[in-house]
Amino acid sequence: MAGSKFAYVRKFELPDVLLPSTFMVFRLDGHSFHRFSDEHGFVKPNDLRALQLMDHAAKSLMEEYKDIGLAFGESDEYSFLLRKSTALYNRRQAKIVSTLTSLFTSCYVFHWPRYFPDVPLRYPPSFDGRIVLYPSQQEVRDYFAWRQADTHINNLYNTAFWALVQQGGLTTTDAHAVLRGTVSKDKHEILFSRFGVNYDKLDPRYRKGSVFVRAEKKKKGKVATQLELLHCDIIRDDFWEKYGHILRD
Amino acid sequence: MAGSKFAYVRKFELPDVLLPSTFMVFRLDGHSFHRFSDEHGFVKPNDLRALQLMDHAAKSLMEEYKDIGLAFGESDEYSFLLRKSTALYNRRQAKIVSTLTSLFTSCYVFHWPRYFPDVPLRYPPSFDGRIVLYPSQQEVRDYFAWRQADTHINNLYNTAFWALVQQGGLTTTDAHAVLRGTVSKDKHEILFSRFGVNYDKLDPRYRKGSVFVRAEKKKKGKVATQLELLHCDIIRDDFWEKYGHILRD
Amino acid sequence: MAGSKFAYVRKFELPDVLLPSTFMVFRLDGHSFHRFSDEHGFVKPNDLRALQLMDHAAKSLMEEYKDIGLAFGESDEYSFLLRKSTALYNRRQAKIVSTLTSLFTSCYVFHWPRYFPDVPLRYPPSFDGRIVLYPSQQEVRDYFAWRQADTHINNLYNTAFWALVQQGGLTTTDAHAVLRGTVSKDKHEILFSRFGVNYDKLDPRYRKGSVFVRAEKKKKGKVATQLELLHCDIIRDDFWEKYGHILRD
Amino acid sequence: MAGSKFAYVRKFELPDVLLPSTFMVFRLDGHSFHRFSDEHGFVKPNDLRALQLMDHAAKSLMEEYKDIGLAFGESDEYSFLLRKSTALYNRRQAKIVSTLTSLFTSCYVFHWPRYFPDVPLRYPPSFDGRIVLYPSQQEVRDYFAWRQADTHINNLYNTAFWALVQQGGLTTTDAHAVLRGTVSKDKHEILFSRFGVNYDKLDPRYRKGSVFVRAEKKKKGKVATQLELLHCDIIRDDFWEKYGHILRD
Repeated sequence: MAGSKFAYVRKFELPDVLLPSTFMVFRLDGHSFHRFSDEHGFVKPNDLRALQLMDHAAKSLMEEYKDIGLAFGESDEYSFLLRKSTALYNRRQAKIVSTLTSLFTSCYVFHWPRYFPDVPLRYPPSFDGRIVLYPSQQEVRDYFAWRQADTHINNLYNTAFWALVQQGGLTTTDAHAVLRGTVSKDKHEILFSRFGVNYDKLDPRYRKGSVFVRAEKKKKGKVATQLELLHCDIIRDDFWEKYGHILRD
Repeated sequence: MAGSKFAYVRKFELPDVLLPSTFMVFRLDGHSFHRFSDEHGFVKPNDLRALQLMDHAAKSLMEEYKDIGLAFGESDEYSFLLRKSTALYNRRQAKIVSTLTSLFTSCYVFHWPRYFPDVPLRYPPSFDGRIVLYPSQQEVRDYFAWRQADTHINNLYNTAFWALVQQGGLTTTDAHAVLRGTVSKDKHEILFSRFGVNYDKLDPRYRKGSVFVRAEKKKKGKVATQLELLHCDIIRDDFWEKYGHILRD
Repeated sequence: MAGSKFAYVRKFELPDVLLPSTFMVFRLDGHSFHRFSDEHGFVKPNDLRALQLMDHAAKSLMEEYKDIGLAFGESDEYSFLLRKSTALYNRRQAKIVSTLTSLFTSCYVFHWPRYFPDVPLRYPPSFDGRIVLYPSQQEVRDYFAWRQADTHINNLYNTAFWALVQQGGLTTTDAHAVLRGTVSKDKHEILFSRFGVNYDKLDPRYRKGSVFVRAEKKKKGKVATQLELLHCDIIRDDFWEKYGHILRD
Repeated sequence: MAGSKFAYVRKFELPDVLLPSTFMVFRLDGHSFHRFSDEHGFVKPNDLRALQLMDHAAKSLMEEYKDIGLAFGESDEYSFLLRKSTALYNRRQAKIVSTLTSLFTSCYVFHWPRYFPDVPLRYPPSFDGRIVLYPSQQEVRDYFAWRQADTHINNLYNTAFWALVQQGGLTTTDAHAVLRGTVSKDKHEILFSRFGVNYDKLDPRYRKGSVFVRAEKKKKGKVATQLELLHCDIIRDDFWEKYGHILRD
């Protein structure tokens, strides 16, 4: 056969199997989304349409890949938890990373017009993805706590920053200068005293990020699963007591 | 800081640097494109629109990533050669695989309406990607020869098969049966004697696949590069004598 | 500096860090020990001197590397459990594998004359080593259970086999033929009825292998550790209830 | 079978195949040899017996593993070049690293009494090993050049240093102080003017390190190979012109 003398090149494809019985966290980040959000006029500090589009793409991924039990998104990033027993693509790293990143990207572009009916996509956006392995439940919880704590820090800063700029009339340079060295309490105080904003009353979607969980429902003795979108605390125990099954296996 | 007690989870992100000074071949494949092509009514054995869309996405990738010197596509797959000296993303595997797969996918969906103006995309298509390392020029040449030899084998089979079905009126089962055990010469003969088709006269795009090469042009003492789309033989020496610079470093 | 223009070759040394917070099992196997045991007249089915030498080398490894909490040996192999939190050599795989294999080998050759005073070493023996990662305690227990179950199977077979040859006067070919297809009970029966051997009364060292455990002793409010050599069951819960601390972190 | 319910633990043994058609350099280093050389009274700056023992162990490795074509040793380290086409242990990294380190260590301990007849080994020495891959001949040459340049730098420094201490009567602190900031020429000058030593006339073994090469000899139309021990320059072209076959495949 014509191809057989060249087929030896396949030997250079080395296995990249991920350790069995270990949780996989797959995280996506927007590629150059600072520029992308500028070009498409994203509202600051949070663009509801853009976040809902991210959520839609994340949900599509979870509908396609049943071994994803939990997802958490903020801004232009999303993290997905795969069951530790997943045999998806025989746990081959490049296959999983590339396929999941691809499908998410595809959904993002595909559903764009639904969330931005008046804003044509000016160029194709892209994402990068990676997989991190965690051996135990505690580390998985701490991973998601890390992302949500990050959401809190970023969003509080951004909310104060854009209030200073948009309502306060400061330049971006001055707004950064005002916030330099401030702690959390100071930012709450700036928002409340200068702009009458009670940060804790803002939409939890912005403060907590988006949580998709594959909930289990018992119906007539059978267990059915259903995707739920939440904007709740996932750092404290309550969440994990209610949805502990996603860490089970 | 709120996040700091959780930040230890970053230690689980292990480095995945690819061996320096080694050619990288990045290959993409359509995910479940058999179904995708059916759902979107792709013409058999080759759909010009679909191939041109693949080419467009490939070209976009090469415009964005200057370290890709060569690409070869056929059907729903595309291979890209990165210079052996590339420092793209510090040669981190997951970053490269995911970003390139993402951008290709994004371009595919973004440009779909241009090539299929009357066929709305019914659902988001996806691709998987992988990187294979090759230490030497010979292996790179043989890799691309392997893909083009494969193109030839597949296209000859498919051309004969669909002629038997579309012009010959056979069922797909019968068409497969006719072709079982035939060698290359037999398929040429079937095409010629039964359907008057001289396979070697068919559009080289189908027979040879698509080759994008970053050609060097000397202009007023400077070297400029320019992407060229070819449908030529890349197995024999001629191509590599003309474009040898893409293997240089 | 003379060396600086060549120092770029260090860039080809890629990191090989093992996943944090994961148990490491390091297993050594004798290289061509069938021949080695023949050349040095090892007693069949078990040579006490050779086993004690293996134990001595294993103990030396545990004395040097405090993060090894447990070891299990049989025949010419030994497995070592490193704490999941170990930071030994920053968890670099090649460094750990090579150093531990080297020290074990060195101890084996160094202490040889003590166990084989009348048998000069005819050539240098060698071992190979590997590391396997286990995310959870259960898998670590099952790993050691796997090795001990293997010990049982091999030793029962070998004991019956050599009884047939040494006391029964069979050729090795005939002895294998007698045992072909027999189950555990049959081998017990052969040993008992033909040779008056109650397998369960044989030295547990041969039946159970060697277990080194880093035991914790409380002394005047402090916890001291001490290596204990056991030949006990490590499959059932008793062992792990007593020495559970070796799986703690 | 008793072992079968535990055998799943084997699934955690992941493949670690090294990229085909790539040169492997295997480098060994003595573990804590500063202390080891002190404890065993190694002569400073170079102990001929210790170097010859290293050479003996290296030669044994090359006799056992025919795919090693070249070795270079200095002080307590040794580097070995494996053919790029080697299929040793199916190119499994841990297997190669551990086995080669083990055999070298074993030879070192085994042959110790031959080189140190009056110095009993006080404790078992050990080595660590690693493999670095190089895609091309140039990098392999540069790797060995890097090691030999290092030998030169270290040996010149050590020779001057120990002359200042042993013949010059300086403390080690003062000797280091004298050499601080000196360049190569200064050290030559110190050796020559203060101690009458022409560095370039010293035994090339110390200045150039040890080179083992698998030389090819044509005899009656057949090619036989033979290990040669050299203490020559391996940075310049002469060596590689004569022994170029070791880079061939």
